[in-house]
Amino acid sequence: MPELRKDPVVGRWVIISTERAKRPNDFSKNSEPLMEGQCPFCEGNEGMTPHEIYTISNPGVRKPDTRGWQVRVVPSIHPVLRIEGDLGRKGSGMYDMMNGVGAHEVIIETPKHMSGIADLDESQINKVIFAYIERINDLRKDRRFKYVLVFKNYGALAGASSIRHSHSQLIATPVNPKLVKEELLGARRYFDYKERCIFCDLIKQEIDSQDRLVMDLDGFVAVTPFASRFPFEVWILPKDHSCDFSNIKKPQIEYLAKVLRTIMRKLKRALGDPPYNYVIHTAPFRIPKAGYWRTIEQDYHWHIEIMPRLTKVAGFEWGTGFHINPTPPEDAARYLREVNENA
Amino acid sequence: MPELRKDPVVGRWVIISTERAKRPNDFSKNSEPLMEGQCPFCEGNEGMTPHEIYTISNPGVRKPDTRGWQVRVVPSIHPVLRIEGDLGRKGSGMYDMMNGVGAHEVIIETPKHMSGIADLDESQINKVIFAYIERINDLRKDRRFKYVLVFKNYGALAGASSIRHSHSQLIATPVNPKLVKEELLGARRYFDYKERCIFCDLIKQEIDSQDRLVMDLDGFVAVTPFASRFPFEVWILPKDHSCDFSNIKKPQIEYLAKVLRTIMRKLKRALGDPPYNYVIHTAPFRIPKAGYWRTIEQDYHWHIEIMPRLTKVAGFEWGTGFHINPTPPEDAARYLREVNENA
Repeated sequence: MPELRKDPVVGRWVIISTERAKRPNDFSKNSEPLMEGQCPFCEGNEGMTPHEIYTISNPGVRKPDTRGWQVRVVPSIHPVLRIEGDLGRKGSGMYDMMNGVGAHEVIIETPKHMSGIADLDESQINKVIFAYIERINDLRKDRRFKYVLVFKNYGALAGASSIRHSHSQLIATPVNPKLVKEELLGARRYFDYKERCIFCDLIKQEIDSQDRLVMDLDGFVAVTPFASRFPFEVWILPKDHSCDFSNIKKPQIEYLAKVLRTIMRKLKRALGDPPYNYVIHTAPFRIPKAGYWRTIEQDYHWHIEIMPRLTKVAGFEWGTGFHINPTPPEDAARYLREVNENA
Repeated sequence: MPELRKDPVVGRWVIISTERAKRPNDFSKNSEPLMEGQCPFCEGNEGMTPHEIYTISNPGVRKPDTRGWQVRVVPSIHPVLRIEGDLGRKGSGMYDMMNGVGAHEVIIETPKHMSGIADLDESQINKVIFAYIERINDLRKDRRFKYVLVFKNYGALAGASSIRHSHSQLIATPVNPKLVKEELLGARRYFDYKERCIFCDLIKQEIDSQDRLVMDLDGFVAVTPFASRFPFEVWILPKDHSCDFSNIKKPQIEYLAKVLRTIMRKLKRALGDPPYNYVIHTAPFRIPKAGYWRTIEQDYHWHIEIMPRLTKVAGFEWGTGFHINPTPPEDAARYLREVNENA
């Protein structure tokens, strides 16, 4: 069973993923990419994955774990958290820990052996986003879970595995992650002072100034954030205030698919298919009706953060939490506006 | 001039290092290591660096920027912060920024073209630590600076440059870094509750349990922390309480050199010369005599964090602040205790 352990000084949780336990010799160099025939995510190879949890299927009758799907969600074969069991919070002297309970799922974004979301068409990305929402809403029912993070790792330098077939992942956690709490707290502090959502203000300032605006289309903006941690970092935010990604409705999903696809294609064109991570930041599962966090609906605003991984994170960053970014976001925005995503 | 910019939501500072400004095509793959003759850090090539700031020299007369030194400190040729100028804190709409004022220095650890600190002898590491202390105490006099981080990047995956010649770096910053503040706050909270230093308690528990103890020698312990973020992460802590690394005295420096060298050699042996970062966590420059932070001397405890970089940090980590570690620290400690650093 994996364990969740809390650093006693800064309160940071770490997953000690004992199921993947590694000895000194197990840290291999980059593994070879899997070819099409060996790929467990390809249509026809459904037997190579754990049983599917959810699919968007072709019309007609289909047996589980067979051909005929467009998006398929399966449990991770190397889960960092386990779905079974209770939390078992306990102490060990001055330390705190709990069982590594959670969900770890893989969203296979296409039945075809394609590697990047930039190569999928809009209607396919639309289905991927729909699958994200469906899975979040299902996992929300499990009272053990407090948060779910949907994320994507693309390219070895961004932590992707040897499976190149286009996929995202999600991990549901039994605690609210530190960074999420920091965002909630920052947004709340601003709201307390201004009585406005900080992200709504940010969107307004970015549209007014245009300096860091990459796109403003159909209810979404894409901006290079003022304090970008990574070169060519891009955030996509809905212009209408909403704290909860899983609340977005049909037409909005289509628009988001269009904007996400355009940005991913622009990044691919401008930077030569860079490694990247993206994460969806949304409100925690259970929004309290009273007490300190009761205002999340007003003061938090969901968004997607896309982080190309062109620079290495080194000692200074790990020691301070500072980031060093050699590309001013104003320059990045200009390049991204100018690059033709369809060229 | 580089800029320091603050994320308006979470308050994280980012250095936009405009002097290194990068366009899309500038993100090259790993550069080739520099050979001995081309290496600016080798004895005899002093003219290839900016003018030296500090040296530990051989006995006798020596002109600056010539042969005859054992440890040499020079400004970084690609500084992320600039030594000249004032802070110029200002706003830009809802955003906050200041000039990228600070110091960025390189500590060249040996006149010989050797790559790792594990290959230096104890007396040489002793001199390196002495140079760290001397530089910290000099930079402390500059009232613009609040903190200095001494760190080391080894290996391309840990963010090291193409210069393989053994060196460390330091960066002095005009703000207290977020992670440092979090550590101070966590330590203070514990002290408020227990009236004991959290690090002293941690050392006691680790010595009692032995589970994560790698070494206990001459006033220092080396442990694999309970909530290790990275496989084979090791912290070195002085057993005598002290918040300030730069206060350590002669015999203690010798003992620290011995422990640091042993740990670096054990990691090299156990993991096959892994990439790593290490950072020295010490108290900020100016410890207030009154107010909220007046207790730093009692409740903070300097230490060195050594982070082998065997796993990649991916979307889940960047999205949540969680880390995933596949090697339980108890296993790592056992391997490191058993491996013979002199084999």
